[in-house]
Amino acid sequence: MIKEDILSRNNKKAKDVRVLLSDKDIFYVNLMSSPGAGKTSILLRLIPELSKKYKIGVIEADIDSEKDALTIEDKTDAKVIQMHTGGACHITCQMSLEALNALGTDGLDIIFLENIGNLVCPAEFDTGADMNLVLLSLPEGDDKPLKYPLMFEVADAVAITKADVSPIFDFSIDNARENIRKRNSSAEIFFTSAKQNEGITELLQYIENKAAKKIQGI
Amino acid sequence: MIKEDILSRNNKKAKDVRVLLSDKDIFYVNLMSSPGAGKTSILLRLIPELSKKYKIGVIEADIDSEKDALTIEDKTDAKVIQMHTGGACHITCQMSLEALNALGTDGLDIIFLENIGNLVCPAEFDTGADMNLVLLSLPEGDDKPLKYPLMFEVADAVAITKADVSPIFDFSIDNARENIRKRNSSAEIFFTSAKQNEGITELLQYIENKAAKKIQGI
Repeated sequence: MIKEDILSRNNKKAKDVRVLLSDKDIFYVNLMSSPGAGKTSILLRLIPELSKKYKIGVIEADIDSEKDALTIEDKTDAKVIQMHTGGACHITCQMSLEALNALGTDGLDIIFLENIGNLVCPAEFDTGADMNLVLLSLPEGDDKPLKYPLMFEVADAVAITKADVSPIFDFSIDNARENIRKRNSSAEIFFTSAKQNEGITELLQYIENKAAKKIQGI
Repeated sequence: MIKEDILSRNNKKAKDVRVLLSDKDIFYVNLMSSPGAGKTSILLRLIPELSKKYKIGVIEADIDSEKDALTIEDKTDAKVIQMHTGGACHITCQMSLEALNALGTDGLDIIFLENIGNLVCPAEFDTGADMNLVLLSLPEGDDKPLKYPLMFEVADAVAITKADVSPIFDFSIDNARENIRKRNSSAEIFFTSAKQNEGITELLQYIENKAAKKIQGI
């Protein structure tokens, strides 16, 4: 019961976030994955391209450390804020709203929320984002959608990351695709390597398409 | 407040588990890591060796799927039970106790609990185990102890896994060790590859030493 109340209150708040961002024509992406699946690395590929057309903001959520925010700040021209969750394993919509306010949304077009590295809890909390982008790191194995069902159910898109190490891991793309499809019949699936800059163009086009539709009010 | 109550109740229950297992001279290991860090693979290396001297039990905790329990059952002679958490991101001590009862502890010497793949929440809940064994998968990166502090604080031992792919990932053993030490001054650190059977002997000796002390009541 307590959990249902928390989730229901969270979902109401998510509407507030969507109204705030719609009024400002801002596209908001919730980036989720296991620890170390490459969330920051993929942002470092996406942001410089998106920055050619759009003003980008990034909320870096971590339990501790400011490493990722410093990296993004150092290597891109995105507006960045580091958020510490005080031990919390996920971002609630209230936390998302506070972070958006602390970042300052005026003038921004696309904002990325780099969620806590966790394939379970963040999936339960609607952050008010327009898109849930889930990363599945190739070294984790192609069976993860079977074991962490909700994360793959709430995904609008799944990017398999670290594809460059495919030859040395027992990972079947076909199995991964099949396992994702068991959880989600429509999520777009990308096969990427931030290191080799592979599959990034396709992912970029997908995000840009969705963002453009919202920003231009189509 | 709610969280504190839950944790305090959990810790009381952990004492019950310890009394139960001490009475039966059973050594209980809580195996924790991110998703896909190699918990099952390392068990497949440890169990056949430990089985030469000890009767082994395994509790496989997953949100969904029975894959890991079937693998352990198929490839070892351990007594195995699959536990589904109904979406929960961690194992409470109550769940641990119920799983131990469902497994049936009579005659067993060492029991492994393969916790939910999650580097955050499982660390908060004492399962009543004698040892917290934490895996850090090399592809996840050497900075993880900075970002997921509690998991590395509660670890009795940390095994860095997938060491065989060390040449192709930007992972520094020295940095990893230093970052673990920032969270934990005494945890034993192992450098392992289940695939290449490297570092397993050292980890095995460590577990066996601790287990023997408890089982023989030293």
